[in-house]
Amino acid sequence: MARLERTASGSEQRENGRQQVLGVIRQSGQIARIDIARETGFSPATVTAITSDLIRAGLVEEIAPEEPRSGNRRGRPRVALRLRGDAHLLAGIKVAVRSLSMVLIDFDGVTLAEHHVRLPDDAMPPARFVDEIAKALADLTGKIGKTTRDISGLGVGMSGFIDAPTGFVHWSPSLDTRNVDIRSLMETALKLPVFVDNDANLVALAEQMFGEGRGVSNFIVVTLEQGVGMGIVVDGRIYRGKRGVAAEFGHAKVHLDGALCRCGQRGCLEAYVSDYALLREANVLMRFGDKTTPEDRLDMLFDAANAGEQPAQSILDRASRMFAMGLANVINIFDPHLIILSGEQFSHDFYYADEVLAAMKNQVLKIDAPPPEVRIHRWSDLMWAKGAAAYATEGITELAVRGMNADA
Amino acid sequence: MARLERTASGSEQRENGRQQVLGVIRQSGQIARIDIARETGFSPATVTAITSDLIRAGLVEEIAPEEPRSGNRRGRPRVALRLRGDAHLLAGIKVAVRSLSMVLIDFDGVTLAEHHVRLPDDAMPPARFVDEIAKALADLTGKIGKTTRDISGLGVGMSGFIDAPTGFVHWSPSLDTRNVDIRSLMETALKLPVFVDNDANLVALAEQMFGEGRGVSNFIVVTLEQGVGMGIVVDGRIYRGKRGVAAEFGHAKVHLDGALCRCGQRGCLEAYVSDYALLREANVLMRFGDKTTPEDRLDMLFDAANAGEQPAQSILDRASRMFAMGLANVINIFDPHLIILSGEQFSHDFYYADEVLAAMKNQVLKIDAPPPEVRIHRWSDLMWAKGAAAYATEGITELAVRGMNADA
Repeated sequence: MARLERTASGSEQRENGRQQVLGVIRQSGQIARIDIARETGFSPATVTAITSDLIRAGLVEEIAPEEPRSGNRRGRPRVALRLRGDAHLLAGIKVAVRSLSMVLIDFDGVTLAEHHVRLPDDAMPPARFVDEIAKALADLTGKIGKTTRDISGLGVGMSGFIDAPTGFVHWSPSLDTRNVDIRSLMETALKLPVFVDNDANLVALAEQMFGEGRGVSNFIVVTLEQGVGMGIVVDGRIYRGKRGVAAEFGHAKVHLDGALCRCGQRGCLEAYVSDYALLREANVLMRFGDKTTPEDRLDMLFDAANAGEQPAQSILDRASRMFAMGLANVINIFDPHLIILSGEQFSHDFYYADEVLAAMKNQVLKIDAPPPEVRIHRWSDLMWAKGAAAYATEGITELAVRGMNADA
Repeated sequence: MARLERTASGSEQRENGRQQVLGVIRQSGQIARIDIARETGFSPATVTAITSDLIRAGLVEEIAPEEPRSGNRRGRPRVALRLRGDAHLLAGIKVAVRSLSMVLIDFDGVTLAEHHVRLPDDAMPPARFVDEIAKALADLTGKIGKTTRDISGLGVGMSGFIDAPTGFVHWSPSLDTRNVDIRSLMETALKLPVFVDNDANLVALAEQMFGEGRGVSNFIVVTLEQGVGMGIVVDGRIYRGKRGVAAEFGHAKVHLDGALCRCGQRGCLEAYVSDYALLREANVLMRFGDKTTPEDRLDMLFDAANAGEQPAQSILDRASRMFAMGLANVINIFDPHLIILSGEQFSHDFYYADEVLAAMKNQVLKIDAPPPEVRIHRWSDLMWAKGAAAYATEGITELAVRGMNADA
């Protein structure tokens, strides 16, 4: 099985070029080479070279030109290009707390099947984790009469500190062990190329390929689930940093010597805004009675705040303002075109309230230009899974083109 | 006078390619095309195309091959390339509080002249600011028997919120007016292309071209002067964000509803670590007697801390720990290969103390990989000026190559 190695900058630029061209074709449905050149800014010669590679790798095909319509007879009709949807079958998995959300897509990004699985535990031994995924993958592919053998690549998004280029997990709440070479374990068990990344990065990729980030070269996605995640897109590519653990927004410090965080440090944003942080405060003042689950207690907290109870309001108020401050810091440092708040949890809606966004804008540097747009995008775990499948699509593209060039 | 317009991504990639090739030639002194290909990862065909443009633009020249030494007779001797140092004369200016530091370099980056000017005021009307620069530029070029007319381009680094692609100053402590199209004013007065950027970005460029950032694709430069600045290099290029005001690290918030900052907001890092922030606290407790200047009072504060006086130590201790927290946040979000603390002020040395760096490392995400290296680079305002000249070098390169292609 081929591996995507860390590559030199020239090869990275070629990969970027390929992914940009594929992105333009994907968005257009079908498009002539000259229009790809216009959209990407590449020279026609570069576009011809890139598309020729993609055609030879079986990823893109030419469409016979249509008859020119009357009134548009100048020049010969142009050949258009489109993705070969049937070129590859790709699976994406979002690993959440005690659940897997899975999607099967074709090379054109069309969803062919979906699947959800409950997991027995939060953190599992790596071998059991791989077993669960293998079983779920068989069920997912079975839904359209296929097997795991028919999949060209699998993308996996999980929380934690993940080194994406090597698929190495430094730490994840889904595993009971640190420092796991999860990609090797999965590739050995599943016999197919696997691409692993932090789930927030894959949400950013999903936003870029299918969502609010289409056509935006610099944007940031902030996710709110059990924790706070961030994905950064710079010049059209996910920014991953040196160790592959960039964008740990949830562990940026918002208070010197502040509240204790699950990560063991103090003052992290997560220690103020996540579910456990809200409950830690609520436990001091609220009487939960027979409400024993975190979900029930959170509901009670939100209900109390909505009913105007001061302690509950004070808890949510501070969390909102800390969240606004964290967002403002990201804007001050990155100055992105767009910030996408992406998630599905109703319980966190208060973070998206007008007052929070107003507080954020108040803390952004005052220049006489508008701050970046903030869009709120509610979507389900399935879209996270689709981001994971999109990551596999990118990976398989590179394997296909490089494999072909190596054969030549 | 040609303008560098905001360009499409294909054209940006070509520009990146050119600057990478020039960077490799600059570092090597002289180098064969095949070795450029190896260093950059570009294909030999791409290197040939780029270097052919650079040769036609008069920026690079071929060197006659040396006789092959005995023992190394395989193949014909290879033609090497080097920069044409005399191709262009470039000036760089660092605008500091009440002073200009200036440098004149050739296209190869060799320093030909230096000059320092005292300015009468902190903030000047734009027209007077341009007059001062015109006068200083005449003096600088006069030092080697040249005039301003002999300069191909001028780079200007100043504090404030600057939109580099357009040379527009939203706000700068050096101007008494907001929203000044300073590039147009300077180009009209000086009759030469001018390139303006935030001074911290130009320090990052200087570190990349001449300093600790050579050969490092992702690094961050933090500067400490009157304020706190940051320059970010991603994939070998300065990251500027949407509005051209990225990396305002000094105005990232480190405390909700915290200390008042000169920018009018609360809780900015600058409001805890800059000179005025230290003095604001010192004024509460220390008796300065006849010490009336900020410099003298700061000296007294540092002396008191070194002598073990508790209030002075407490002031510097909090400032150091806030600075460490800000640095840790940058690392958690960017995960750069390298952080360069760059500056010259002795008074700020305590920020670079071992305890501060240890505190920073304690707040960085714990994964079983080392945090990025932190290097301390003390250099003078002249190196900031050299960064400004380097920015002009990049700009003039693009004007030369594009002008040539437009003529073709």
